[in-house]
Amino acid sequence: MTGEARTLTHIDAAGQASMVDVGDKAETVRVARAEGFVRMAPATLELILSGNAKKGDVIGTARLAGIMGAKQTASLIPLCHPLMLTKVAVEIFEDRALPGLRVEAMAKLTGRTGVEMEALTAVSVACLTIYDMAKAADREMEISGIRLVEKSGGRSGDYRRGDAG
Amino acid sequence: MTGEARTLTHIDAAGQASMVDVGDKAETVRVARAEGFVRMAPATLELILSGNAKKGDVIGTARLAGIMGAKQTASLIPLCHPLMLTKVAVEIFEDRALPGLRVEAMAKLTGRTGVEMEALTAVSVACLTIYDMAKAADREMEISGIRLVEKSGGRSGDYRRGDAG
Amino acid sequence: MTGEARTLTHIDAAGQASMVDVGDKAETVRVARAEGFVRMAPATLELILSGNAKKGDVIGTARLAGIMGAKQTASLIPLCHPLMLTKVAVEIFEDRALPGLRVEAMAKLTGRTGVEMEALTAVSVACLTIYDMAKAADREMEISGIRLVEKSGGRSGDYRRGDAG
Amino acid sequence: MTGEARTLTHIDAAGQASMVDVGDKAETVRVARAEGFVRMAPATLELILSGNAKKGDVIGTARLAGIMGAKQTASLIPLCHPLMLTKVAVEIFEDRALPGLRVEAMAKLTGRTGVEMEALTAVSVACLTIYDMAKAADREMEISGIRLVEKSGGRSGDYRRGDAG
Amino acid sequence: MTGEARTLTHIDAAGQASMVDVGDKAETVRVARAEGFVRMAPATLELILSGNAKKGDVIGTARLAGIMGAKQTASLIPLCHPLMLTKVAVEIFEDRALPGLRVEAMAKLTGRTGVEMEALTAVSVACLTIYDMAKAADREMEISGIRLVEKSGGRSGDYRRGDAG
Amino acid sequence: MTGEARTLTHIDAAGQASMVDVGDKAETVRVARAEGFVRMAPATLELILSGNAKKGDVIGTARLAGIMGAKQTASLIPLCHPLMLTKVAVEIFEDRALPGLRVEAMAKLTGRTGVEMEALTAVSVACLTIYDMAKAADREMEISGIRLVEKSGGRSGDYRRGDAG
Repeated sequence: MTGEARTLTHIDAAGQASMVDVGDKAETVRVARAEGFVRMAPATLELILSGNAKKGDVIGTARLAGIMGAKQTASLIPLCHPLMLTKVAVEIFEDRALPGLRVEAMAKLTGRTGVEMEALTAVSVACLTIYDMAKAADREMEISGIRLVEKSGGRSGDYRRGDAG
Repeated sequence: MTGEARTLTHIDAAGQASMVDVGDKAETVRVARAEGFVRMAPATLELILSGNAKKGDVIGTARLAGIMGAKQTASLIPLCHPLMLTKVAVEIFEDRALPGLRVEAMAKLTGRTGVEMEALTAVSVACLTIYDMAKAADREMEISGIRLVEKSGGRSGDYRRGDAG
Repeated sequence: MTGEARTLTHIDAAGQASMVDVGDKAETVRVARAEGFVRMAPATLELILSGNAKKGDVIGTARLAGIMGAKQTASLIPLCHPLMLTKVAVEIFEDRALPGLRVEAMAKLTGRTGVEMEALTAVSVACLTIYDMAKAADREMEISGIRLVEKSGGRSGDYRRGDAG
Repeated sequence: MTGEARTLTHIDAAGQASMVDVGDKAETVRVARAEGFVRMAPATLELILSGNAKKGDVIGTARLAGIMGAKQTASLIPLCHPLMLTKVAVEIFEDRALPGLRVEAMAKLTGRTGVEMEALTAVSVACLTIYDMAKAADREMEISGIRLVEKSGGRSGDYRRGDAG
Repeated sequence: MTGEARTLTHIDAAGQASMVDVGDKAETVRVARAEGFVRMAPATLELILSGNAKKGDVIGTARLAGIMGAKQTASLIPLCHPLMLTKVAVEIFEDRALPGLRVEAMAKLTGRTGVEMEALTAVSVACLTIYDMAKAADREMEISGIRLVEKSGGRSGDYRRGDAG
Repeated sequence: MTGEARTLTHIDAAGQASMVDVGDKAETVRVARAEGFVRMAPATLELILSGNAKKGDVIGTARLAGIMGAKQTASLIPLCHPLMLTKVAVEIFEDRALPGLRVEAMAKLTGRTGVEMEALTAVSVACLTIYDMAKAADREMEISGIRLVEKSGGRSGDYRRGDAG
């Protein structure tokens, strides 16, 4: 990333919060992937996974909440643009080493602006939903590692976490 | 926390996701505090803080987004009850050791159910807003450490992180 | 139902749509139950139920959509009051005779106004979600029989469908 | 409809609820029409129609609620895509034979995905609004016959209820 | 109003925007009335009123939009508390002298905080809706005179516009 | 403005409120600017500006509320189309002569319909937020002069307030 890129695009010359004008950007296919984690006690993970074995409801509910949350991104994040997402997907995996759950989200759009905030919002809302559904059993849970994994389609070039400094 | 508490209150006997009935809970003053962190490159933190020196907009915007986000909790988290919060506060501090920003939120209610999800949602939305406003400068930022710090007023007793096992 | 009750409470003396003032009503526990049906081809029902055998997602998704929809009632129905529901539950049953699915919803509140609209909205949104998820297989599905089953706790007395004329 | 079409597009290979990717679909003009009915006591219908003779508020309010409800479709139905509707229309007719009211909705879009859910949601919200406004006079009302009437512009070909099996 | 009252309750000691804690306020019946005006060309007023003579739709639509808008106050105004309004009413009158329309709104609540923002939001949204529906005929319309008319039930005493200095 | 333009596009032939079909309009860059004013006591203006000298929160909060409010336009105004705004900007200036604050908003879109309602809604919500934050100090404030300043990109030609009759 070059030095000149190191400005805050959402702050205007007067130092005020400001929505970026994306009207001149090209309509391209844009994809973003993000991830996040919910760390919990081993017994809590067992509870969720055994519940899951039956009807899968903690994980199923968190997946849906993440998908629906992505559609609220522009209402939640003040300077985000309203977007017509063509696809949102959320997957949740057990992570015995953590121990806990890993949440992965993908957002896709044919449009003028990137969708990383939609992917990150999907991850955040899915993690909050997991917390909500298991909190009576474990108040020590922690949500962590929410970050962009991959991004393509934008003017600033493709990105894969770990490739860039 | 006793063994019998180790059930998932949001999963009914048939294993289905289910909203807890809070109608029989007492109306008490309930307070919850949560925190979270956004880790970033030192130069990104400088950018935000110097912007802040001028008009404070990344931090000011994230604070407001967190407060407004708390009010959307019941729309975002499927099994959360709609609540009439009497107070939401969000504070954001620099954390040079991280390096990055620490977000702290408090939610308060006179009502029948706890407000930890509102505090955690406020933190999450504030962190996402920080990410959004600085992402053009730093795509490697990571949101972490979102957790409940303190809770009081509920039937299950007061809680302070670190006190319980 | 007496003759004097036969007025439209949501229309004022001038014939205009109007929200009823519930400020003088007593705070009581109010419960409402509603039901509705989605009629479909037998093969569509098989598809949903076999999908359900695996991970239950049509039914699980529709249940959640119904619960979340109930919380949006006051935003959707112009003259409904915002309410703090203490419980919403949605159950979905197969109905081989229809053939199709029967949706049942319950809404509960300690408050000043009835919750039948919340129960009916939960049923409607759950039915629409079933339609959405199965529509690629069957465009002939029909949503029907959405009605109040039972209501208690209000000034106008308890109600059970079939008891009253 | 061919056999291979008989799958649930909203359930992925792992049996999980999933949003369809519409990014590759063509941008075409898409129109959908849906209808629904509210059956009521003859006296209730008289009340609504005479109120309507004055200022038309039950019917006028339900029409608007339906139009506004259509714009909330993607917030209500978990796997629906956010869309930029170019037109929504709702008409309400008396149906003395029912007796009751018939609601008809049309949704239109230049975009990548069909708008039948928007038309069906408009009908559902209009029907719920009629129920809400007349419920003090008649708790036995029933919402029925909510179905797709016509659809055009999609990849799967035009559809008219009654034409297909 | 005493000198000490001349502080901004929504700005904390550090100068940051902040939601007031209303948890200690008494639950009382609170009522607020607000008004506003839409000034327009005489011919535009004629168009609206003659349309109104038929089915009343500009005025009827603006009334409903105002009522529904009041319920969104806490989502729109960052530091407003979510409230359970027991009544919202909007009336619209012709004002031949303006020429234009006068909008009047009333909001009512049994609760811990005043409802003037709900009344003012109802007026604003109703005025915007009038503008929207007539803008093709008259782009010069102007919304003005939005103000609190009356307020009762709060700790700071009753208020009537014109009584105070 | 010609005589034939003097019809209410949002009222159909039957006199009913109706959304305009914008499907046939061309996709062009459309920009609208609107303004509005909050008149207040000189001491209230001082309070806001001195607060602003510290951290700028009344003005900063109102700017953000306006931007976020613009994104809710289609939810608030019954017959507005959902739009994908490419830019919203809100500026707030002191106006010592008023005395009070002037709010200016700009909305921009590449699409099929004008964005004046988005600009006017941004102004209205920003004005309401200023009122909310200063109301404890001054209940006599008045919101006025909300109007379209400039509009370009639509079929009906560019518009600048004052140019047209």
